[in-house]
Amino acid sequence: MDTTTRFGERMAILAHDGYPDDGKTMEGVMRYGDYEVVAVLDYEHAGSETREHFPDLPNAPVRASMDDVSEPVDALLIGVAPVGGGVDERWREDIGMALARGCDLVSGMHEQLSEDSEFAALAAENGATIYELREPPSDLPVAAGIAGEVDATVVLTVGTDCAIGKMTTTMTLVEAARDRGVDAGAVATGQTGIAITGHGIAIDRVQADFAAGVAERLVLEAAEDHDLVVVEGQASIVHPAFAADTIALLHGTMPDSLVLCHDATRDTYHNFESFELPPVERYVNWYTSLAEPINPTEIVAGALNTSGIEDDTTARDAVDEYADRIGAPATDVIRFGPDVVLDEIA
Amino acid sequence: MDTTTRFGERMAILAHDGYPDDGKTMEGVMRYGDYEVVAVLDYEHAGSETREHFPDLPNAPVRASMDDVSEPVDALLIGVAPVGGGVDERWREDIGMALARGCDLVSGMHEQLSEDSEFAALAAENGATIYELREPPSDLPVAAGIAGEVDATVVLTVGTDCAIGKMTTTMTLVEAARDRGVDAGAVATGQTGIAITGHGIAIDRVQADFAAGVAERLVLEAAEDHDLVVVEGQASIVHPAFAADTIALLHGTMPDSLVLCHDATRDTYHNFESFELPPVERYVNWYTSLAEPINPTEIVAGALNTSGIEDDTTARDAVDEYADRIGAPATDVIRFGPDVVLDEIA
Repeated sequence: MDTTTRFGERMAILAHDGYPDDGKTMEGVMRYGDYEVVAVLDYEHAGSETREHFPDLPNAPVRASMDDVSEPVDALLIGVAPVGGGVDERWREDIGMALARGCDLVSGMHEQLSEDSEFAALAAENGATIYELREPPSDLPVAAGIAGEVDATVVLTVGTDCAIGKMTTTMTLVEAARDRGVDAGAVATGQTGIAITGHGIAIDRVQADFAAGVAERLVLEAAEDHDLVVVEGQASIVHPAFAADTIALLHGTMPDSLVLCHDATRDTYHNFESFELPPVERYVNWYTSLAEPINPTEIVAGALNTSGIEDDTTARDAVDEYADRIGAPATDVIRFGPDVVLDEIA
Repeated sequence: MDTTTRFGERMAILAHDGYPDDGKTMEGVMRYGDYEVVAVLDYEHAGSETREHFPDLPNAPVRASMDDVSEPVDALLIGVAPVGGGVDERWREDIGMALARGCDLVSGMHEQLSEDSEFAALAAENGATIYELREPPSDLPVAAGIAGEVDATVVLTVGTDCAIGKMTTTMTLVEAARDRGVDAGAVATGQTGIAITGHGIAIDRVQADFAAGVAERLVLEAAEDHDLVVVEGQASIVHPAFAADTIALLHGTMPDSLVLCHDATRDTYHNFESFELPPVERYVNWYTSLAEPINPTEIVAGALNTSGIEDDTTARDAVDEYADRIGAPATDVIRFGPDVVLDEIA
């Protein structure tokens, strides 16, 4: 999304087959998006409320389908991202019902719903817009290696795996920096970040030759508006499938500093469980060493996701051990707050 | 190109603005392609012959435009790839003339010439086909991390920069392996390789999330047909703009071994001269260390391009020093032949 877009005020979120564990986009928008979530759609948990699974987020009812949502809704957001999955019949019905009511559709799926003839016709008939969060602009640039020249301080979140807290860390840092009076902006590079901010480009949809160039352009633009720019990282520098996203961001953004995100209980790659996660120390070396010839930078802080650890004392110990291992201060930005990281970057 | 395609027998090659130095595709097809090159088009060097610049390649006359090519031609190949440049008026005239004669057009440009309404109409009227070498298929896979399981021996050429000899090394190795009776196949991942083999996918045009998956699929397919698969590498693991291509190939192909390509006289990145090329020793560490958690592999040989060194003795010294530095046998595959590398991989 090239220009910042607001998807109305009241949102329904489709989360079939992914609620509550695989709803990264749903959770991100509920946590950081400035929207009233009228309902979450999940046929399996219909009748429950989201606070049962997400006690620290604004509550919303879980309903089986759009048919059960009588409240006014401005937009239906696709809140789950099934790997390799597509839009099945249940999804189609809800999307169709939403468009028929004139709700906009906000989708971060690889599959372009605006090119579906039925959806396109329904949208046209009912004055609804289909937003493709993942669709990059057509004028893609090749990186020139100039993002390091901006006046703003640029921070890139990097990680040991996908779905490990880079987006959460980015949004939390930007909110906390603003609370401190810093003019901070988030650069969204994935569908959830784009759904939250209404702006950004999904790096994973950009052709490999232009991925670093897109990262560069996003930084150049954000640096015009902000003193502190926090870039949402993607995937991991070592990964069976997605490291291209990561290295493009590392070289394209030319960041002043890096925040390394990890999950305390993650031993194998998410969705690629036959591959063991390398020790975090190696990631420190990979990220700094690969950045160095293009733009020297350091891991200045760590963000450890300890949501898999029940008690705070064990979580605190895990954070301390993580800080030791990466040689930088660390925190769980949700559990213990982001101040430790913010002190290092702002 | 999903299915292997032959672009006729007689080819003209458009090389305006790039001849002789920036004609990687032209040179690759003249060296390794099984085509009769009827003419090279370059308005600046018109009247000369290609052997003046390429004494070891089959000779062809250089002409100013298609208008000066009276011989029958089956296909016009775009043989140069101007960075950021597009199709200017002179190119348009030659392309138009070729299509009007019923010649097929073979293009590896990012810009899709088949979507140009004038060219599309000319092609349709005259029974000509426009081949977009760089256009990936629409059904792109995500990598599953399974390329390491194939029976064939898989070799990936990697490099310290773009335009440093990965494609040349790949094609030379495959030819030499076949001369030894090895059932060898090249996996083309860029427009020149695809122009030569009539098969392959341009990794740089694949969306970042699918780049490793495409690399994986190309290896799985090639391994069904060959005992030795040599994959054409792209760009460099550290690069201001294009490292995404490289890391996708490194993780997606899960190679048994790597051949590190370098240019003896290259000090800064090609087209990014403000960035110094890191020492080759660091590349050895980067490539092996980043591959290891997904698929352990080694740099088993080096291919040093010594074309910038005049005398053979100095070139031989450069190769020896390079071998020392990377800790593996090395050669210049063109100047001294590829046997040293082939001994390590086949």
